Amino acid sequence: MHDHVYKLIELTGTSTTTIEDAVQGALARAHRTVKNLRWFQVIETRGDIEQGRVKHWQVTLKIGFKVDDEG
Amino acid sequence: MHDHVYKLIELTGTSTTTIEDAVQGALARAHRTVKNLRWFQVIETRGDIEQGRVKHWQVTLKIGFKVDDEG
Amino acid sequence: MHDHVYKLIELTGTSTTTIEDAVQGALARAHRTVKNLRWFQVIETRGDIEQGRVKHWQVTLKIGFKVDDEG
Amino acid sequence: MHDHVYKLIELTGTSTTTIEDAVQGALARAHRTVKNLRWFQVIETRGDIEQGRVKHWQVTLKIGFKVDDEG
Amino acid sequence: MHDHVYKLIELTGTSTTTIEDAVQGALARAHRTVKNLRWFQVIETRGDIEQGRVKHWQVTLKIGFKVDDEG
Amino acid sequence: MHDHVYKLIELTGTSTTTIEDAVQGALARAHRTVKNLRWFQVIETRGDIEQGRVKHWQVTLKIGFKVDDEG
Amino acid sequence: MHDHVYKLIELTGTSTTTIEDAVQGALARAHRTVKNLRWFQVIETRGDIEQGRVKHWQVTLKIGFKVDDEG
Amino acid sequence: MHDHVYKLIELTGTSTTTIEDAVQGALARAHRTVKNLRWFQVIETRGDIEQGRVKHWQVTLKIGFKVDDEG
Amino acid sequence: MHDHVYKLIELTGTSTTTIEDAVQGALARAHRTVKNLRWFQVIETRGDIEQGRVKHWQVTLKIGFKVDDEG
Amino acid sequence: MHDHVYKLIELTGTSTTTIEDAVQGALARAHRTVKNLRWFQVIETRGDIEQGRVKHWQVTLKIGFKVDDEG
Amino acid sequence: MHDHVYKLIELTGTSTTTIEDAVQGALARAHRTVKNLRWFQVIETRGDIEQGRVKHWQVTLKIGFKVDDEG
Amino acid sequence: MHDHVYKLIELTGTSTTTIEDAVQGALARAHRTVKNLRWFQVIETRGDIEQGRVKHWQVTLKIGFKVDDEG
Repeated sequence: MHDHVYKLIELTGTSTTTIEDAVQGALARAHRTVKNLRWFQVIETRGDIEQGRVKHWQVTLKIGFKVDDEG
Repeated sequence: MHDHVYKLIELTGTSTTTIEDAVQGALARAHRTVKNLRWFQVIETRGDIEQGRVKHWQVTLKIGFKVDDEG
Repeated sequence: MHDHVYKLIELTGTSTTTIEDAVQGALARAHRTVKNLRWFQVIETRGDIEQGRVKHWQVTLKIGFKVDDEG
Repeated sequence: MHDHVYKLIELTGTSTTTIEDAVQGALARAHRTVKNLRWFQVIETRGDIEQGRVKHWQVTLKIGFKVDDEG
Repeated sequence: MHDHVYKLIELTGTSTTTIEDAVQGALARAHRTVKNLRWFQVIETRGDIEQGRVKHWQVTLKIGFKVDDEG
Repeated sequence: MHDHVYKLIELTGTSTTTIEDAVQGALARAHRTVKNLRWFQVIETRGDIEQGRVKHWQVTLKIGFKVDDEG
Repeated sequence: MHDHVYKLIELTGTSTTTIEDAVQGALARAHRTVKNLRWFQVIETRGDIEQGRVKHWQVTLKIGFKVDDEG
Repeated sequence: MHDHVYKLIELTGTSTTTIEDAVQGALARAHRTVKNLRWFQVIETRGDIEQGRVKHWQVTLKIGFKVDDEG
Repeated sequence: MHDHVYKLIELTGTSTTTIEDAVQGALARAHRTVKNLRWFQVIETRGDIEQGRVKHWQVTLKIGFKVDDEG
Repeated sequence: MHDHVYKLIELTGTSTTTIEDAVQGALARAHRTVKNLRWFQVIETRGDIEQGRVKHWQVTLKIGFKVDDEG
Repeated sequence: MHDHVYKLIELTGTSTTTIEDAVQGALARAHRTVKNLRWFQVIETRGDIEQGRVKHWQVTLKIGFKVDDEG
Repeated sequence: MHDHVYKLIELTGTSTTTIEDAVQGALARAHRTVKNLRWFQVIETRGDIEQGRVKHWQVTLKIGFKVDDEG
């Protein structure tokens, strides 16, 4: 008998401070439209540079959530 | 001249019995909201364990379908 | 302080002529529903064959765009 | 002193029922022309979809066999 | 504050019948010496061949469990 | 019940003009000995250089075809 | 003449605060049973989510140490 | 007895027209400072998007050349 | 018509404190000799261990910059 | 105008002595049936073990050759 | 019916002379504590450098053995 | 506080005799212009073939060194 189904979406969060903050930003944005987020996996960590310093950390995530009525 | 366009979504199906059943569960769920599913590819096979046995098979798929009016 | 968030979707464009045209087809289709597309990355280049020639180039892309109100 | 040499070929078996059956189909076909098959490795598991269910499981294998007189 | 730690070990289960049975065999063996197994991930699916049929399915898993006193 | 079986071969096509032309060259060559080619996937794109310009595009493909009587 | 031998083990450290703290947690746990840890490599960064925020950072490491009498 | 040594550098060429043109741009630039370029390999194909069309193709290459006196 | 060309170099930054600091160290060093750094991508995160704690975080980056007169 | 076409085959050479000898064994075997071998790439290095020592080195290669009349 | 189970461990052997010798060193060390080693796979080949020459070859292996009573 | 920075360059060494000799050739060449080489990692092992035997082993390395005044 098959059971729950989860959907994975891919977001890039950005932050001027830390990798962790870029992840939290992406999750916060996803949480505005999807309530039951369950887990994430970091796919890539990049950034842009200004004056020899990181300007924005850019962290790409896969985020998983249980699908019920939205698809 | 360019031609049809397909979208790929990523779902994780779960099942207490087999890998095939977990895949069918994910496809059945996707089919409730998208009618013209065409193909899938298995991305990852995982599971959780209870008392030394597989409790749920968790199979992550990319599923492709032709996009017409939804995007 | 975290900053903008981007979403990545995956599309396969097809074309009877060139790889570039298949990419443009996928972008054109995405642009009909999402206005602020920013960047893409080619994930895979495949095709089907008829009479020993390419019938359709099939190019799979990840496409990134800034998320504001859609999710 | 060098020793036996093995060749690897790549086949995709298909089945309407299970992944295992798709593998057995590919091996059975290879066995019709090559007698001394030794081992295989699953490279990819895909499928096509009809009415929201798997129509054919498509399992791509590398299959190894000892080469003696064929090449 | 850091929290639980998990260890991952890698086992290859084998079976004459199915991929699922090979996984269960590996988990059963691990369960004899480690009680709190939590999750697994399939790393590779191979097999040996006899008379053009699969003789043993060989499925390699990473298995995760919480470490408390063993290491 | 298992079903059709496909074989995959790997060829490198070359061209002095475009990536697409290198692919067509490889398919044309394969078509001389195998009639029912079905699909291809680009594995690698390389080239050699002369006077700071591409001399030959070298595109490596996996090409799939249904096997019936050849092996 | 061959020389020292090192063993690699794989652990997942978790933390409610940072990626660095999850790594330190895994190393601290390993250090309780193995004294001569030498180096680590981050294999994967994941996490679980609660109320749209990271609940635990889960960082999987390979950790290398010189083997002398344990194996 | 060891023999010639080659160095590999990584460049991203860009073009508003084709993938091939982006590659030629990168090679032309490299040729201004290194005369004996030998081969290249495409590492990644990306691009930025404007008004739903590719603005610049961005193709990243490894380029190999024989080292004699420069390093 | 082809356009700007970018070069990618690979550096490993190290830090006793955080992953972010190791990245900043690598960028600061690159900035001393190359002024127009544009972007970076994290390739690998490793470290050495002393007394069961991270001694140095070692983060390997690809860093891209526009090439004009240097090569 | 497209140009030469090359075929790639995959062989595993074995040797009781060295990796290089295993490669030479695979090439020697391929040379018995295909005269114009051009290049190879090592795909995997494995071996079996007897009494705590390597019994056979098993080196898998892709070997490329120009195709003219065979396919 | 499921069958034998194998465990895989990961070791890095080192040698001042050859890659083969580094592998033999790792196997010899593993053999001191595990008697029934069966196969290995080379995962990575690295080394450290002194005065422009290899000081130690460092070869990382996965080694498989049948598990009976140890775990 | 961030610490030392290392640069990685990629070279292909060649040899008519062994893989080890090809590596030593690449290191010897790098050592002529960079004095403080620290470590290397083998990226790829290829070769060209003449009369069914290896003509040149071609081994591609990443080589790391501490950067102080050169860049």
